[in-house]
Order: sequence, then C-alpha cells, then structure tokens
Amino acid sequence: YLPSLSLQWIILQSSLLSLGAGILTYKMIPTIAEMTAQANLAGMDLNKKGDAKFHGKKIPESLGICTSVVYLVTVILFQLFQWFSFPNTVLLSEYNAALASICFMILLGFGDDVLNLRWRYKLILPLFASLPLLVAYAGGTSVVVPIPLRDYLGGVFDLGIFYRIYLLLLAIFCTNSINILAGINGLEVGQSVVIATSIIIHNLIELTLFTQQQPNSTATSPHLFSLILMIPFLFTTISLLFHNWYPSRVFVGDTFTYFSGMCFAVVAILCHFSKTLLLFFVPQILNFLYSVPQLFGIIPCPRHRVPKYNPETGKMEAIPSNLTLLNLFLMIFGPMTEKQLCIYLLIFQGFCSGVGFGIRYFVAPYFF
Amino acid sequence: YLPSLSLQWIILQSSLLSLGAGILTYKMIPTIAEMTAQANLAGMDLNKKGDAKFHGKKIPESLGICTSVVYLVTVILFQLFQWFSFPNTVLLSEYNAALASICFMILLGFGDDVLNLRWRYKLILPLFASLPLLVAYAGGTSVVVPIPLRDYLGGVFDLGIFYRIYLLLLAIFCTNSINILAGINGLEVGQSVVIATSIIIHNLIELTLFTQQQPNSTATSPHLFSLILMIPFLFTTISLLFHNWYPSRVFVGDTFTYFSGMCFAVVAILCHFSKTLLLFFVPQILNFLYSVPQLFGIIPCPRHRVPKYNPETGKMEAIPSNLTLLNLFLMIFGPMTEKQLCIYLLIFQGFCSGVGFGIRYFVAPYFF
Ligand SMILES: [Mg+2]
Ligand SMILES: [Mg+2]
Repeated sequence: YLPSLSLQWIILQSSLLSLGAGILTYKMIPTIAEMTAQANLAGMDLNKKGDAKFHGKKIPESLGICTSVVYLVTVILFQLFQWFSFPNTVLLSEYNAALASICFMILLGFGDDVLNLRWRYKLILPLFASLPLLVAYAGGTSVVVPIPLRDYLGGVFDLGIFYRIYLLLLAIFCTNSINILAGINGLEVGQSVVIATSIIIHNLIELTLFTQQQPNSTATSPHLFSLILMIPFLFTTISLLFHNWYPSRVFVGDTFTYFSGMCFAVVAILCHFSKTLLLFFVPQILNFLYSVPQLFGIIPCPRHRVPKYNPETGKMEAIPSNLTLLNLFLMIFGPMTEKQLCIYLLIFQGFCSGVGFGIRYFVAPYFF
Repeated sequence: YLPSLSLQWIILQSSLLSLGAGILTYKMIPTIAEMTAQANLAGMDLNKKGDAKFHGKKIPESLGICTSVVYLVTVILFQLFQWFSFPNTVLLSEYNAALASICFMILLGFGDDVLNLRWRYKLILPLFASLPLLVAYAGGTSVVVPIPLRDYLGGVFDLGIFYRIYLLLLAIFCTNSINILAGINGLEVGQSVVIATSIIIHNLIELTLFTQQQPNSTATSPHLFSLILMIPFLFTTISLLFHNWYPSRVFVGDTFTYFSGMCFAVVAILCHFSKTLLLFFVPQILNFLYSVPQLFGIIPCPRHRVPKYNPETGKMEAIPSNLTLLNLFLMIFGPMTEKQLCIYLLIFQGFCSGVGFGIRYFVAPYFF
C-alpha cells in the first residue's frame, strides 16, 4: 500500500537534498541579512513601538531573497541529477515553466522591496509571471460536474479558455492573499509552512492511494512533481521561520510572500489540485473577503492595517476599523501578545487544513 | 529565395511587438531611474571626475532591470499569442528553459547590484542559472570533424558529456566577458547591440539559405527560435542605449551585462551556433585574454581598471598597467574623448562581426 520503490527513492533523495538546502539557508541568512541591511533594506518593527527592549533597532528586510534563491538552486540541481529517473509523464516543459514563473515572481518581489513599486505594477506583473504556466499547462480544461447537476450539464463540462482564466486568477490570488495576511512576526512564513505541509500530506495520500489501486498509473506523476517542488520549499521556509519567529531577527519582504504564493499556485495548477489548494487557503480567503471594503477603497485604508501594540500590557489590541483577520481574532479572543496571536492564527490555519482534508476525502466523494 | 510566408509573418509580428516593447522601455527608463536613485542605486561617473560640467552629479544605476523585465514580458506575451503558430520543432521545454535561465540571471544581476555580492557568489551563481539550459538542450552532442582530421577521427565525433560542459563554460564566459569589457559610457549596451544585430543577420541568412535549399526543412526552426529571442532583445537594448550613450543619463548595472550575456548564450546553445557566436565575441575574447594576468591575480588588480580622464584636455589617457582593451586602444591610437573611444571599440566590434561572417560563410566551408 505504499508508493512504489522508485518513487520512494526519488522522494527520499529530494528530502535529503532539501535538508541540505534548509541547513544552508539557515546558515546563510545572517550573512545575507547584513548585506540587505547595508543596502538599506531594513525597517522598524511597528508592533514593538514604545517597547524599551526593542527601541530604535532596525530589522533587516527582504530575507525571502536568500530562501528563494537557495530554493531555485535546489530545484535546478534536482532537475539536473534526477531528470532521467523521473517518470516520463512529468513534462520538462512544465518543470521549466514552473522555474520561469517562480523565478520571475521572486524578481518582481525583490524589485518591489528595493524600488517600492506602485500598486498598478504590483497587480499587473504577477499576471505576466503566471503566463508561462498557462501556455505549458498540459492538463485538461474540463471540470467534473457535481452529481446533483449531472442531469443538466452531463458528467464533464469543458470550460475551455475560461479554465485557463480561472488558473490565472488563482495565481494572482495566491500571491496577493499571503501578502495581505501579514503584519506580525512569523505569520507570513508560518502560514506558508502550514500550507506546504498540507500539500505534501495531500500528495503523499494521493500517491499511496493511486499506487494501491493502479500500480502503473500515470496519475501518480503530478503528485510526484508537486512533492519535488514542495519538499525543498518546506525545508528552506522552515529555516527562514527560525529567524523570522517572534521576536524577528529578520523580515521576509514581498520577495518571500510573492515567492511563496507563486510556488503554491504553480503546484496546484500544474499538478491539478486547485480546488484542494483553495481548501488549504480558507484563512487567506476569509481575510481577503473581510478586507474587500478597504482593499477596494469603499472604506478608507491606512498604510498599515496591523493591530495596535500596547507597551503597558505588552499585548496587541484590535483596531476594529482595520478589517483584517488579525483584528477580528483580537476582537473575538481579546488582547494577546504578538506571539500568541501568531500561534492562534497558525492553529486556525492548521485547523482549516484538517477540515479541508475531511471535505476532500469524506464529503467530496458524495458529490463527484 | 526568401523564408516561407508563415515564417515571415511570425518574424514581422515579433518585430512589431518588439518595436512596442522598445518604445515602452524608452518611456519607462526615466521613471524607473528615479526609483533606482531613490533606492540608493546611483553612482558617480568616474570618467568625468574634475569636469565642472558633471561635478557631483550622481547617475541612476541598474537600469538594466527596466530593459530586462520589459524583455521578459515581451517574450512571454509572444509565447502566449504565437505558440500555436510556431513550427512544432520549436520545443516548449527549450523555450521555457530559456525564460528560466535568463530570468534567474537577471535576478542574480540585480541582486548583485543591490547587495554587492562577493566574487565567489558571482562565479558560482551563473553556473546554476545555466543548468536548466543543459537539461533542456535537445540537440546533438557531436561535433563535425574538420576535413583535414577526418582520416584520424571520422566524420563526426561525439563529445557526450563534454559537449554539455563546453556549453556551460560558454554561458559563464558570455555573462562575464561583457561585464569586464566595460567602464565607459555606452560600451556595454553598444557592444550588445552590435552582437545582437550580427546574430539576427546570421539567423536571417540561415533561414533564407535553408528555405531555398529544403523548403520544408526542420533546420529552420532553431534560427526562428533565435530570432524570436533576439529581436525583442535588440529593440529594448537600443532604447537603453539612447539613455546610456555619452553623456550617460543612466547606468546599466550588472543587471544588464548578466542579462545580455545570458541571452546570447541561450540562443547560441539552444539554436546550435555556438562557434559562430564566438566569432562575434572576438573583442570580448581578446579583452579577456589580455586581462588574464590581472583577473587571476598574477599582476595586482585595482578595483576599477578604466583609463584616466584628463580634465585639461577632455580626453581619456591609457594606464598601461591596467590590462584592458580600452587601455590598449588608447595606447595604439593615442588619447581620445570617452565618446570617441566608445565609437572606436564599437567599430572594432562590428569589424570583427564582418570578419566573422567571412570566416563562417567563405572559409569554414573548406574545412567542414
Ligand atoms: Mg513592498
Ligand atoms: Mg556589482
């Protein structure tokens, strides 16, 4: 009932290489942090204003650049050494489209951190970064119709070009939604770790199920492909979390949030589990929906929408007019420390993934 | 005797799109220049030290980022709209490998401009950036043996893995050799324009010859592929040259030299004309060979190896201990203005391309 031996061997090698990449990232971050601080990529920690312990200390920014470049090198090296042992249903055109899209997104994120791009560039450029995925996307454009609707629409429904537009919107949503569920130490990186872990578990379940049912099925290869992209992501991101966890010694920048969102979009699109990914993105979807009035200017939107830090109590307090999940949590659970708030939000992220697995494996089979 | 109509149509569309990209680049550069200057990416023009006209004025740096991002977007858009009209011998895996390698190289160049990477990173990272090309490279690994040697080696000789190593070294050489033939206004961009023009002429000659001899030959597609990558490169680079020409209003940074070198390496590797490219790189090869004693530390190497500007005469004077082609030219032709020196070097670049064409089409046929 386990994935076949050669698959296990590929996954094991990827894990070992990724472990090495994680250690390298962990060691390199302090060095790169000095370099980003030197380049004036550094900022005050807003949630510690008025706290004597942290007074006036600037934190190096954009350390996502270290994680993401080590990640790219790892994925490229794995391609070089393992390409000929991959099942030939993993397409080189898709692998390289993934590399191109992720790399372009890192470039845009880093460009944004350095040059402070205006909103219009930020919205348009991720669109271009995801276009190579759309061209390379070799999967179908049909969706399976839920059972109750099959009398009207038939078993499968071909969305054609609209399916590709849906994938494009998914990529734009993923990159931006992680970027706006942010503002306290460890949150951007922590949520990425939870989502990546969920995706890896999903891939392993699917690989095990498929191998059990059809030992030589080609349906295993998308999940193998996803694992090869997600395992190094998880290891390099965990290393970043060690440095970014409360109290943060480094910040991650838009470089990281764009990189992270694009990695998730890439695996969901090329490995055909976009609906499952959306189940893992429930907190980001809630935060986005709750933010809509401010994002679209219906309600005034200040530059930063983080809660207020109270140096007297050492706790964060809600600003109800800032419509984010952070403030909503503080309104529901009362004031808490920055670290507690981050842990609450990450537990919620994990809880959503758990519910997502329930829906995917116990509810969805009744409808599809 | 002309390339077939559908090829002409693709080339025409690429030229029109590239013209648009060139105009966009030209208009965007002043805006992006303000942003890079704001981000402290700006420097003094060393060759105008002591000249009252330019005194104390800082020039925005790293404008290669504007050119290269517009270039990437153009190549991605062309892929999106034209993919299905390409001959199916242009491989999507190679197209996306080209995108990934060029994009990674831009990221490294911009990272270097912002963070001032150390030498060891600069040497190692381009190597990783070119690995996707090696994996995707679908051409042969054999070389045609020159006629005088065929009695000993046979007609073709398979270099196997060594051919891929040769391609890797070519990529590293291209990116670094443009970076070191630099230091006066307009030279990096000017030489790139001359080389790109030479490549485009070569591709057009080959397309015409092939279509003449074998109308349905698959041998046309590599040269079509090269044109699709080189035409937008030429247009966006010419726009940059307008701003970078003497007296420079912007500098281009390692972002541009790495980007430019990688583009040339990509087309030479994937479109199988690496020997012809080396003919167009003769000035870079001469400059590299002449620089070897300083690059490898046999002779002391100062931080900048540019000639000396004499504010009295307004001319550049050779510093014979700085072993670069610039100083060699000044030693041979005597002191001249910065603009004159740049024009002399570009004429030499064009002359070498002319000789290269002669060797490629009139001398090489006697040996192969
Ligand atoms: Mg930003
Ligand atoms: Mg530099």
